[in-house]
Amino acid sequence: MKAGVDLGGTKIQAVVVDAGHAVVGQARRETPTEGGPPAVAAEIAATVREAAASAGMDVRELAGVGVGSPGAIDRTAGTVAHARNLPDWERSYPLAGTLTEALGTTVLLDNDVQVAVAGEFELGAGRPYSSLLGVWWGTGVGGGLILDGKPWLGRGAAGEIGHMVVKRGGAHCPCGRRGCLEAYAGRASMESRARHLVEQGEKTALFEIMEERGRARLQSGVWARALEDGDRMATRLVDRAIGALGAGVASAVNLLDIEAVVVGGGLGTRLGPPYVERIAEAMQPHLFVAERPPAVLSAALGDLGGAIGATLLVS
Amino acid sequence: MKAGVDLGGTKIQAVVVDAGHAVVGQARRETPTEGGPPAVAAEIAATVREAAASAGMDVRELAGVGVGSPGAIDRTAGTVAHARNLPDWERSYPLAGTLTEALGTTVLLDNDVQVAVAGEFELGAGRPYSSLLGVWWGTGVGGGLILDGKPWLGRGAAGEIGHMVVKRGGAHCPCGRRGCLEAYAGRASMESRARHLVEQGEKTALFEIMEERGRARLQSGVWARALEDGDRMATRLVDRAIGALGAGVASAVNLLDIEAVVVGGGLGTRLGPPYVERIAEAMQPHLFVAERPPAVLSAALGDLGGAIGATLLVS
Repeated sequence: MKAGVDLGGTKIQAVVVDAGHAVVGQARRETPTEGGPPAVAAEIAATVREAAASAGMDVRELAGVGVGSPGAIDRTAGTVAHARNLPDWERSYPLAGTLTEALGTTVLLDNDVQVAVAGEFELGAGRPYSSLLGVWWGTGVGGGLILDGKPWLGRGAAGEIGHMVVKRGGAHCPCGRRGCLEAYAGRASMESRARHLVEQGEKTALFEIMEERGRARLQSGVWARALEDGDRMATRLVDRAIGALGAGVASAVNLLDIEAVVVGGGLGTRLGPPYVERIAEAMQPHLFVAERPPAVLSAALGDLGGAIGATLLVS
Repeated sequence: MKAGVDLGGTKIQAVVVDAGHAVVGQARRETPTEGGPPAVAAEIAATVREAAASAGMDVRELAGVGVGSPGAIDRTAGTVAHARNLPDWERSYPLAGTLTEALGTTVLLDNDVQVAVAGEFELGAGRPYSSLLGVWWGTGVGGGLILDGKPWLGRGAAGEIGHMVVKRGGAHCPCGRRGCLEAYAGRASMESRARHLVEQGEKTALFEIMEERGRARLQSGVWARALEDGDRMATRLVDRAIGALGAGVASAVNLLDIEAVVVGGGLGTRLGPPYVERIAEAMQPHLFVAERPPAVLSAALGDLGGAIGATLLVS
């Protein structure tokens, strides 16, 4: 038995899996918004304990715990820095060491998108392929590469498909640069754009749906609902995101000629196959070998995918 | 001893190298513009014979001949198709088999850019690195990847950095698509743009220099001369190309986080280190990990690099 944790800006999801990768226990808690890294580490430990308890065991019986985290990960040192969506988490924090001490079992860290993509490669939509690009479409646009059956990390920071340039001199990106894919397709950028258009006097039901649901942000379910209702602004902004994803992902395919693209992430998973199919269509006009596109697939492991992928860190 | 051939749209360059990769013989001929693939194959054979003779040997004494060719290569079948810059060369032609028969020694084929990049990796600017992107800046913009010490070919067509999208909805590319890097930085696109600007009434010395040199095209030396003379249009179009290269190459680096970028090709080699340094500067605003850029280097093997790289096909 081993555990996996998906550490996100809003929630901490933990699972316990058996030797056949079946989920036998799970727990979910909200990510603390105060107290900085120590508070987040304590909450992760509590979530893992709860998941272990739901599987009828003690955490010390686990073979280990894998954690997928946002930010800049030092896999060897077990530290996380620059985790923008987590509270007061700029400087490097020894997350693996702190959790190992708190839980009394080995804890291994990796990038959240990388572990989710590894999960899809080993256990999900990517199983038939030896090379793939994972496109994690959520608040930002993350990516992960599997080449020749192994994760490709480069010098440690590979996979930043969200910061490939799709329009020189184009829209401002939350990263501070211009024309990045994420500036058009990241949910945070889409929300900024929607707020700007509302200020300009345009109409949309997006913010009403958000308030009805007691949310402060346009989360994926809000976008999905607005699309179902035929909201014009939501449709237009999602079309714009899909156009940018088509160009950016096609550029990556032209460079790497990989076999498959797996689309996951909050928005990718919530909107699902019909929208993933539209990304495939938007790639087509930009593909250099247009007659042989890669397979473009929806992530298959669902909401638990990140946590399940993180269990693969424990051998 | 083995031979290598760089098959280009204007010239066929052959070299003979010894076991230490030193060039001990060479020959260069013009690429036939008529007669289709058989005429080109006959001229390649003649060029290899001439290079062997200049090394004081017969072609049958060579361990083999490697050929770097434009177009779509089937490495196993030894065929070339869709070689746009060669005469009447759309359909697949058995170049390796034809040359093997003509020369009486083994002939192996690969993509021209791929062999040139492999040459820089094994013997040139890329030697200190285990991962690199070669950017071949010439008539088009080609690319080749070395990942973990080995060429990355994907499903056979990897490396098309020239057809990464740097501006959605942007300039028309010779490939028929829009906004590709090559639409801004390929020498053919730059020439089209210059002709268009002249038709609009703008002034440039580019076409006078071309005529003085008895050329029909704005070859790399023409651009270099115009830049030296401070020609405004040439300066502006090269600046535009460098801006596009900066965005496209930075996008590739953000995706792959490779250690080094090696810039070669006709224009890259002719303009040399000062312009390669400008590409590095143009990448900087787009790099996601801006504080740790890759090394950006000029190809070191010079004009014979493609032919020398092709010798590496023969083991």
